[in-house]
Amino acid sequence: MSSLLSHQSKWVLQEEGISKETIVQNETLFALSNGHFGTRGSLEEAYLIPEYSYGESTLVNGFYDSEPIQYGEWAYGYAKNHQTIIPVPNGKKLTISLNGEPFHLKIGTTTDHKRTLDLKKGLLTRQFVWTSPENQSIDVKIERFVSYDYPELLVQKIWIIPHQDGNQLEVTAETDDLTKMSHSAKEEDSHDPRKKTVKERRFDSRNIKGSTNKLMHISPHHTDLNLIIGATDTFSDQSATIKENGHQVSWTVETKKNQTISLERYMAYGFIFTDPNEVENQARHIDKLLSTVKKEGYAALREKHLTYMNDFWTQSDIEIEGDDTLQIGLRFNIFHLHQAAGRDGLTNMSAKGLTGEGYEGHYFWDTEMYMLPFFIYTQPTIAKQLLKYRHSILPKARDRAREMAVDNGVLFAWRTINGEEASPYYPAGTAQIHINGDIAHAVNTYLEATEDKEFARKEGLDILIETARFYEAYGHYDDLRDGAFVMNDVTGPDEYTAIVNNNFYTNLLAKHTFNYAIKWVNKALEENDEVTQQTLNRLHFNKQELKAWKKAADSMFLPYDEDQQLTMQDDSAFHKKVWDFNQTPKENYPLLLHYHPLTIYRHQVNKQADTVLAQFLFSTEFSQEQKDRDYAYYESITTHDSSLSRSIFGIMASDIGQIDKAYGYFMDTALMDITDLQGNTKDGVHTANMGGTWMSIVYGFAGLRVVKDTLCFFPKLPKQWETVSFTLQFRGRALKVTLKSGDVTYSLLKGDPIEIEQFGQKRLIK
Amino acid sequence: MSSLLSHQSKWVLQEEGISKETIVQNETLFALSNGHFGTRGSLEEAYLIPEYSYGESTLVNGFYDSEPIQYGEWAYGYAKNHQTIIPVPNGKKLTISLNGEPFHLKIGTTTDHKRTLDLKKGLLTRQFVWTSPENQSIDVKIERFVSYDYPELLVQKIWIIPHQDGNQLEVTAETDDLTKMSHSAKEEDSHDPRKKTVKERRFDSRNIKGSTNKLMHISPHHTDLNLIIGATDTFSDQSATIKENGHQVSWTVETKKNQTISLERYMAYGFIFTDPNEVENQARHIDKLLSTVKKEGYAALREKHLTYMNDFWTQSDIEIEGDDTLQIGLRFNIFHLHQAAGRDGLTNMSAKGLTGEGYEGHYFWDTEMYMLPFFIYTQPTIAKQLLKYRHSILPKARDRAREMAVDNGVLFAWRTINGEEASPYYPAGTAQIHINGDIAHAVNTYLEATEDKEFARKEGLDILIETARFYEAYGHYDDLRDGAFVMNDVTGPDEYTAIVNNNFYTNLLAKHTFNYAIKWVNKALEENDEVTQQTLNRLHFNKQELKAWKKAADSMFLPYDEDQQLTMQDDSAFHKKVWDFNQTPKENYPLLLHYHPLTIYRHQVNKQADTVLAQFLFSTEFSQEQKDRDYAYYESITTHDSSLSRSIFGIMASDIGQIDKAYGYFMDTALMDITDLQGNTKDGVHTANMGGTWMSIVYGFAGLRVVKDTLCFFPKLPKQWETVSFTLQFRGRALKVTLKSGDVTYSLLKGDPIEIEQFGQKRLIK
Repeated sequence: MSSLLSHQSKWVLQEEGISKETIVQNETLFALSNGHFGTRGSLEEAYLIPEYSYGESTLVNGFYDSEPIQYGEWAYGYAKNHQTIIPVPNGKKLTISLNGEPFHLKIGTTTDHKRTLDLKKGLLTRQFVWTSPENQSIDVKIERFVSYDYPELLVQKIWIIPHQDGNQLEVTAETDDLTKMSHSAKEEDSHDPRKKTVKERRFDSRNIKGSTNKLMHISPHHTDLNLIIGATDTFSDQSATIKENGHQVSWTVETKKNQTISLERYMAYGFIFTDPNEVENQARHIDKLLSTVKKEGYAALREKHLTYMNDFWTQSDIEIEGDDTLQIGLRFNIFHLHQAAGRDGLTNMSAKGLTGEGYEGHYFWDTEMYMLPFFIYTQPTIAKQLLKYRHSILPKARDRAREMAVDNGVLFAWRTINGEEASPYYPAGTAQIHINGDIAHAVNTYLEATEDKEFARKEGLDILIETARFYEAYGHYDDLRDGAFVMNDVTGPDEYTAIVNNNFYTNLLAKHTFNYAIKWVNKALEENDEVTQQTLNRLHFNKQELKAWKKAADSMFLPYDEDQQLTMQDDSAFHKKVWDFNQTPKENYPLLLHYHPLTIYRHQVNKQADTVLAQFLFSTEFSQEQKDRDYAYYESITTHDSSLSRSIFGIMASDIGQIDKAYGYFMDTALMDITDLQGNTKDGVHTANMGGTWMSIVYGFAGLRVVKDTLCFFPKLPKQWETVSFTLQFRGRALKVTLKSGDVTYSLLKGDPIEIEQFGQKRLIK
Repeated sequence: MSSLLSHQSKWVLQEEGISKETIVQNETLFALSNGHFGTRGSLEEAYLIPEYSYGESTLVNGFYDSEPIQYGEWAYGYAKNHQTIIPVPNGKKLTISLNGEPFHLKIGTTTDHKRTLDLKKGLLTRQFVWTSPENQSIDVKIERFVSYDYPELLVQKIWIIPHQDGNQLEVTAETDDLTKMSHSAKEEDSHDPRKKTVKERRFDSRNIKGSTNKLMHISPHHTDLNLIIGATDTFSDQSATIKENGHQVSWTVETKKNQTISLERYMAYGFIFTDPNEVENQARHIDKLLSTVKKEGYAALREKHLTYMNDFWTQSDIEIEGDDTLQIGLRFNIFHLHQAAGRDGLTNMSAKGLTGEGYEGHYFWDTEMYMLPFFIYTQPTIAKQLLKYRHSILPKARDRAREMAVDNGVLFAWRTINGEEASPYYPAGTAQIHINGDIAHAVNTYLEATEDKEFARKEGLDILIETARFYEAYGHYDDLRDGAFVMNDVTGPDEYTAIVNNNFYTNLLAKHTFNYAIKWVNKALEENDEVTQQTLNRLHFNKQELKAWKKAADSMFLPYDEDQQLTMQDDSAFHKKVWDFNQTPKENYPLLLHYHPLTIYRHQVNKQADTVLAQFLFSTEFSQEQKDRDYAYYESITTHDSSLSRSIFGIMASDIGQIDKAYGYFMDTALMDITDLQGNTKDGVHTANMGGTWMSIVYGFAGLRVVKDTLCFFPKLPKQWETVSFTLQFRGRALKVTLKSGDVTYSLLKGDPIEIEQFGQKRLIK
């Protein structure tokens, strides 16, 4: 078990000592972010000791550079350009020198070194005592947080208490514009398709004069994005000698024993803009912001931040009794989930949040299928912004559908930042047209949970109509299957089975996409307000489309093996040879790094939940027996080589009543990043898996399903735990659900009484 | 119709005038080669007038450079390196200057410019009269041939007849080691996957001192290949002033009216070697060769060459009466086919022969399925060498099978020079495992036709056993299909349908591969000589394998639609939507340049013959009705976007008795390169299509099939022709077959009497 967790508080991750391995590993875990930007938990002086760092990156959500994708052999319609999130200037750099000797962990003696990530407060603190080679000592404390109140703001404060009088103490703060890129994102295993390393500084920078603040305008080499960043500081001792050099400022004082010296540093990462004429305006805004917050001061900002965090936890915490380690792990996951979500309607959540450059900062279906449930039920305003991002890229998705020769609707990119397809491997990229259904499903879930009419009539209809249109134009009625509606040459969620016909998951999602579109169009037509009319006119909507969608939905082909009474993942699933798991050595996992795609594709072997995921999403449509059989079969051929797999198998284990198994899966992954289960946490946290743990509690152990607009629970508490409780937002209510052994309580925290169901029995909660 | 053909002789392609377009186009058509090396038909002074050239390359078969393939996203087992045939030093450069003014087509006046490719003689000649800007004139004739008698040798002779006395005439010969690469292979349409351009000189060169000859050692930057090249010259006028500068020599004389001056140039391109210690030996060999041939002299070498060519045509000509244009076109194709074949057992035939750098000089299945029949039945010793090349790369094919996790047998590379897979797009590369069956089929055809016991017992068994083993290990018995033997996730010849299960062509070829292996192993076991025993021991052959192959062959799944009574290209073929040909504008062909692979794959649309090709290869196994139905269906969905398609559809049209259609297909492609039908002849000739025209005559109109070791004919002459005749080698006999309207004659040119069949009737030919 990770040493981070071996302590008393259920809210704190604590690192003790100066073990290089631990510090490097914790760069990802200690990353702070607010959805707009994030900064890894690297040491302030990491640039002096590269071996104590894997990557010091600060990342701004949606701020990427681009370059053409090189193909061994090009073909029409291939994704054209890489989109790669790039580190922006590092504003965390702080250096302390004593009589000219700069502090770092390899010089002099550092004792009582301790770093703490307080999840409750959203603060990263560091404390240590440093004795210089000259045997002069100081106590140091550094605190850092990323503000939610001011989304552009990174705040740092350093306190230094000298043990002796009369030493020259210099404190230096710097915004490093990375001209050296000394050790950001080292290149390792460059062949791993899940990684993409940025080896060079990929932006231009230009200094801008602020009032009293230091500003910089940066823009990537190959995209039309712009960003203003800036910094300002408050040093406690007015008599200090100040030296300035570009974006570096230092203060020098003579130490007085036990007299605290402090530096407050305010660093702003502005919002992205594309119009180059906006530089001046944006710079003025950042300049003003910095002056404002500096005036407000560290203590006040911190206070505000704690209040925000407290409110967040009130809505989103999961409390668990009976396993303190797990309690912290869950909170850690929720903390990072919350940190990762873009909130401006123009950005989303990358697969690694803003904690690392893994997967190039791309947005995937992970958002809709793994992360959104948490937001929909605990932070619906953030959920809405995430869906608005999808709405913002509809034009690009429309272009992509045309490029794929589908003459109606939209096809969302499989992986993207700007809305254009950025997956260089189409069999596990563009072929995953279930992305449309994933997004439609999320829209429906959001609308069901919030009754957000404004969104329903505009963005909601736009997305649902256009995704339904795509599927209708993509598929066709197959005469050889009695006119069933079929969809060929697609890849389902399981990327170990590519380019197949009638992937069960995809077809089922498409069927529901048709039904969602019909449902929400009809709802809107009933009220027939002006916004609805505008939307339908803009989409050239024709009522005949409803009929076409219904016909396709009703005729949807869902492959099934009557002999074995098993759901088939696709038309050819059971015709493949079963993978020889007995002859596969452990070190050959994940298979994708040890076998050619064709070798994997021609066998029955799954990377992750596919049919089982479909049965989770629509679990009330399947009989217990069917789910039992399918679960047993698909579990036997699944490697869980994707971090998206275990949580779904865990939830479905709950669903079919295999609680011990559900508990096992849950415990395997609940601490995935803290224990570095996948071995690649250094590239960033596994955000989707974090969403998966929340889903495991709520959908799995509490058994939440929304059926006919009603919250339905099928709770079952693992015997290892005493209680689990969490809060849900649903249609204006806030509900607290507490599972205890043999008992479940539901209490209304906010809103009108509401009828729910437990094991099919209605209950009024008031 | 091409102006090349508008003249009297049935053996000559003639170019008249100095039209830039014509001269550029004819660089490919006028290329000369002998299978070891080839040189494009560029003008001697093309370096002075780049617009008169597309690429002056000289190419040595198998001499390639390599670089890592860049992938947008890497995966295990992907082809690692490009293999790219590279131009070697250009030995054709000749410059004539009159009073210091160098001749080229844009200076002074060139009249009566005429180039002639004499197919019968294998000579390229050029004649013109040049009048310099000073109004001084010369008659010039240049002749060039690539020797078959000395495979390293390119021979050139230039004759100059001055019209006036007293001018300074300088003739310069040069071996250009391409340090400038001024205009070799220009970059155009670089996105076209069928092309690969070499933009830089990719070899190192070092001068070597020969006795009196100029030698050079060259080696590519990234492969361990070596080549010695060299040149020597004989100038007619002993009194000339000679200037030497590196690999350039010039002779200057004062002109005497009407007195012919000539230069003979001998240029050697040695064989490839890999041992760097061999440089000296190889250089000595080339040095000696040059001295020998120089002594022999141009006239004697030319005479030898004409004798060789005459013998070749005696064995390989097709005579046709009733269409003179076609007659030349056919001979042109046969000429280039013959030129393209590697003869050393270590090289093969590239898709473009040695006439251009298209397809990087790679060897494909084209050799076995389109070109080998010509060689097997007219030049069996060359056929054997081509098959020996496949044998030479068995170790690489064995490694590749292991890399693809198939634990027995070999998998030949889809495209390669050195035996390693070089296809950067596996769905239309490695997935085409029918390559094994194609090669096995060619081995069987060769053995049937030649009864070559030596080859049968060694190389033949090696290839047949190892390809059969691969299929047996690749496929499996599918319980859901009553235990039929199935092969999943493959691509058939039709590259518009990729990664499917049970491609009919692949499965049928595999079935026959099993049977070939059984047949030739049993034959060898019957005689059970020492060579056979050595081979079987080396292969660790076990008699149980014969049973396993028989079981797989007998259980082979061949997809068939009972309702429609149609052969299915693969399991899912008829479940796809039929391509909307009516809505596809002409300019959108070939589809591969205008639609995403997934768009193509999810429709019923074929690039080329697939099921129809299978039915051609084994036409006696299918009923006339079955072939009629399948032909009609597959023809309706085939675009013929591959140059490999039309010839097969033509042959099968003959097979099912649609002679007019067969004639149409044949005439569409017989002149493909001369008329630049595909628009890319500049990148090299379409060797496979040339093989296809030979097959169209012999398999198509003469209806040759070999059934139970007997030549069987089903002749039908198109009404447009008077007679067609050709020669076949079969089991020690040479047979002349002549189709006339209403009559066919068979005459024995060599060997013992032989029983053949015509329309099922036996005939003894004596």
